[in-house]
Amino acid sequence: MAKELKDLTKRAENYSQWYNDLVVKADLAEQSAVRGCMVIKPYGYAIWEKMQQQLDRMFKETGHQNAYFPLLIPKSFLSREAEHVEGFAKECAVVTHHRLKNAPDGSGVIVDPEARLEEELIIRPTSETIIWNTYRNWINSYRDLPILVNQWANVMRWEMRTRMFLRTAEFLWQEGHTAHATREEAVEETVRMLNVYADFAEKFMAVPVIKGVKSPNERFAGALDTYTIEAMMQDGKALQSGTSHFLGQNFAKAFDVTFINKENKPEYVWASSWGVSTRLMGALIMTHSDDNGLVLPPHLAPIQVVIVPIYKNAEQLAAINEAVAPIMDKLKQFGISVKYDNAENRRPGFKFADYELKGVPVRLAIGARDLENGTVELMRRDTLEKSVHPLAGIEEYVKDLLEEIQENIYQKALKHRESMTRTVETYDEFKTEIEKGGFILAHWDGTAETEELIKAETKATIRCIPLEGDKTEGVCMVTGRPSKQRVVFARSY
Amino acid sequence: MAKELKDLTKRAENYSQWYNDLVVKADLAEQSAVRGCMVIKPYGYAIWEKMQQQLDRMFKETGHQNAYFPLLIPKSFLSREAEHVEGFAKECAVVTHHRLKNAPDGSGVIVDPEARLEEELIIRPTSETIIWNTYRNWINSYRDLPILVNQWANVMRWEMRTRMFLRTAEFLWQEGHTAHATREEAVEETVRMLNVYADFAEKFMAVPVIKGVKSPNERFAGALDTYTIEAMMQDGKALQSGTSHFLGQNFAKAFDVTFINKENKPEYVWASSWGVSTRLMGALIMTHSDDNGLVLPPHLAPIQVVIVPIYKNAEQLAAINEAVAPIMDKLKQFGISVKYDNAENRRPGFKFADYELKGVPVRLAIGARDLENGTVELMRRDTLEKSVHPLAGIEEYVKDLLEEIQENIYQKALKHRESMTRTVETYDEFKTEIEKGGFILAHWDGTAETEELIKAETKATIRCIPLEGDKTEGVCMVTGRPSKQRVVFARSY
Repeated sequence: MAKELKDLTKRAENYSQWYNDLVVKADLAEQSAVRGCMVIKPYGYAIWEKMQQQLDRMFKETGHQNAYFPLLIPKSFLSREAEHVEGFAKECAVVTHHRLKNAPDGSGVIVDPEARLEEELIIRPTSETIIWNTYRNWINSYRDLPILVNQWANVMRWEMRTRMFLRTAEFLWQEGHTAHATREEAVEETVRMLNVYADFAEKFMAVPVIKGVKSPNERFAGALDTYTIEAMMQDGKALQSGTSHFLGQNFAKAFDVTFINKENKPEYVWASSWGVSTRLMGALIMTHSDDNGLVLPPHLAPIQVVIVPIYKNAEQLAAINEAVAPIMDKLKQFGISVKYDNAENRRPGFKFADYELKGVPVRLAIGARDLENGTVELMRRDTLEKSVHPLAGIEEYVKDLLEEIQENIYQKALKHRESMTRTVETYDEFKTEIEKGGFILAHWDGTAETEELIKAETKATIRCIPLEGDKTEGVCMVTGRPSKQRVVFARSY
Repeated sequence: MAKELKDLTKRAENYSQWYNDLVVKADLAEQSAVRGCMVIKPYGYAIWEKMQQQLDRMFKETGHQNAYFPLLIPKSFLSREAEHVEGFAKECAVVTHHRLKNAPDGSGVIVDPEARLEEELIIRPTSETIIWNTYRNWINSYRDLPILVNQWANVMRWEMRTRMFLRTAEFLWQEGHTAHATREEAVEETVRMLNVYADFAEKFMAVPVIKGVKSPNERFAGALDTYTIEAMMQDGKALQSGTSHFLGQNFAKAFDVTFINKENKPEYVWASSWGVSTRLMGALIMTHSDDNGLVLPPHLAPIQVVIVPIYKNAEQLAAINEAVAPIMDKLKQFGISVKYDNAENRRPGFKFADYELKGVPVRLAIGARDLENGTVELMRRDTLEKSVHPLAGIEEYVKDLLEEIQENIYQKALKHRESMTRTVETYDEFKTEIEKGGFILAHWDGTAETEELIKAETKATIRCIPLEGDKTEGVCMVTGRPSKQRVVFARSY
């Protein structure tokens, strides 16, 4: 482990390589034998599970239920919604056959040409089509609405360039799909879930986000409006971390889903959909971690506290074991996830480096002398500061410290974002500033042409039109045409 | 709902139709637009979630961690293990292309012939191959063992005849895949997980099971031994409810996974795999439910107690609301999941029928006169018995009653199984008895030929060679050759 830690690329040398190294060395994930698909290893999956549990709680608190829809979607379903098919047909896995057979030459198995499907099936890139085809049978009257359903699932998009967690051919996510009697309710739901995502990012991931609306160019294929939360990584690039879509009546029209309203008249149903994915793992890693490895927010760390005994012989270890037992008990009573690592085949130095690499928020080390003095050595992962504390009352101290660390890394990330966010007036200024990274607040005339020009010339995109903050009008930095408010530009993952 | 309940086929009329009706009418699942794939509806998924949570807890308590491996498996991987490919190549979904394009005639989208994959990919029917290909890089020394990993995932097997939950083309499951340094440890793990499954079935599902070993004919493709839990449905047919496989070194050899043992010599790794699926939902439904609908074991019921107010006016309702609030609080404090259904758009009779159909274990009804008398009417779903109780202390009574119901439905299922299990000596007797359904204990000579003959002539298969119970030797009922112990025969799902 000490060796592996040494091999971790420094952020300043190559941020991108640091990220790739860290994902592998911290045992989060690795490339699989299948192009663009990753294996999520137990430690990485344990963090994702903590995310899932919290999000699931928040979805249920806001009235949602889980369900499960088929993995495969008939090809023809994609074509029903014109924009949707444009967005998703170009990068999808297509199932054409349902059987293999032995190769005549005995070399293995081949696709059995007799087992060709009548209609090809697509592995879901997202499930609006199959779900709205199902909702048609669930909805007759306004009394059947709203439908507030979420699905935890795997999806596939055949991306050409993949990076673990950030962009993989297969990824894990949740997708909420809701049906409403009115436009207002559907918009309200779309915004509600955006706020749930923002709360989750800030309070659990300790990742500050900007809530906003996407420009038409960046909208989900089939949506009338896409809301987004945008986070800034340490290298100043933006990461879209969650989206919530107001779908209007597009999918209801495509799949003929109507309801009888209170006035006894048929009407198309209104819709929202919203999702976050294992991409959040990328946001988590890139927001907080450092050259020593992961830094995990206590609210999502699978192990919040590790205790390492320092001993020279079995007698000392026995005494430490005895002193640690009640500390473990009390920490567990506080609901703190604690691990006592008294494995004998690794030296303390290795253990220290390993838990640093893995981002465990608090480390306690207890030696024979500590026992004599009634003390314990504590290290907090966010600042790497060491301090010595009385053993008595250490549990309460640790409990408070975990909250302090959670808040500290959030504030650190927020300060970083603020220091990397600038307002510019002219396009020349913009071109200079965008090279330095970060978020640039600038006026834009609202047209796709201007947005595309800026992207072609600077590689920056409009991350969002922010919902909060300064709403002063102005003129577009490129065309001089009127602008209703500044928007957030950045280069992005 | 009252109407829907009336439409439920009676078990005695047509057990199979009763099952199909119940799955749909109790809002558990429905057929999707994709052949053989089902939609799991929110109420059905809520039961599956309860199962998952408990199983996941039991896996973690026995030292396992979750991880995630790719959905798609390179075709060539299947061929590596000779028996495995025979078992799974014949019914799998094959991905051959990664893009669609617009049809030249504008009629929709077609598969882009330019986007053909070099090697076809299979949607996992089970993940031994991709996982053992991954484990090769995780294992070097005996210090890396054991690996105790589980995955919650969707899998596909292109079954020709499908039935909701029991046999679907896509299903949800968990698959454990463990790696060990010795044969003994791998066998021990295989049996440990069989016991976890049996405990779960009996204590949570209230489904009694027989633990046993499969005959070679019925083994998992690639296993040296398959252990199984077999349950008996109300119609006397068997349902294989979970399997745990001792894989020997088969997959280690196929994927070249070796480790350096304590004697510093390379050796192939030993393996187990084990899984249960949404098929358990079928077992749950068919073990306990009746002509009025679902009967759910309290340990897995999403709603354990429903409270229905009976009122004539707003004033009465307000008084009942007030009386119910502290009961709800106390039940929740006990960890009981309770729903107060004071919706105004459905009459109490409809609500009663609906919650019966949905299998809610305990129903409380409170009317204005109850308030005067300080009483409440209680109905328990397992026996449909109604009784009147003092409001004071009703929470403790309900808490105990839930445990009593859990035990009662288990005992009822056990008695049913015992009454439908017979010992036979001759093949003639066997042929008569098997027509009556249930489990038949008979001697068998241990050969595949005899097993196949019996299956061809009677449609009965060997469900398992039981691990517990009578181990008396005898002679095969068909061939008269020696038999080490009686085995369990039945017709099965």
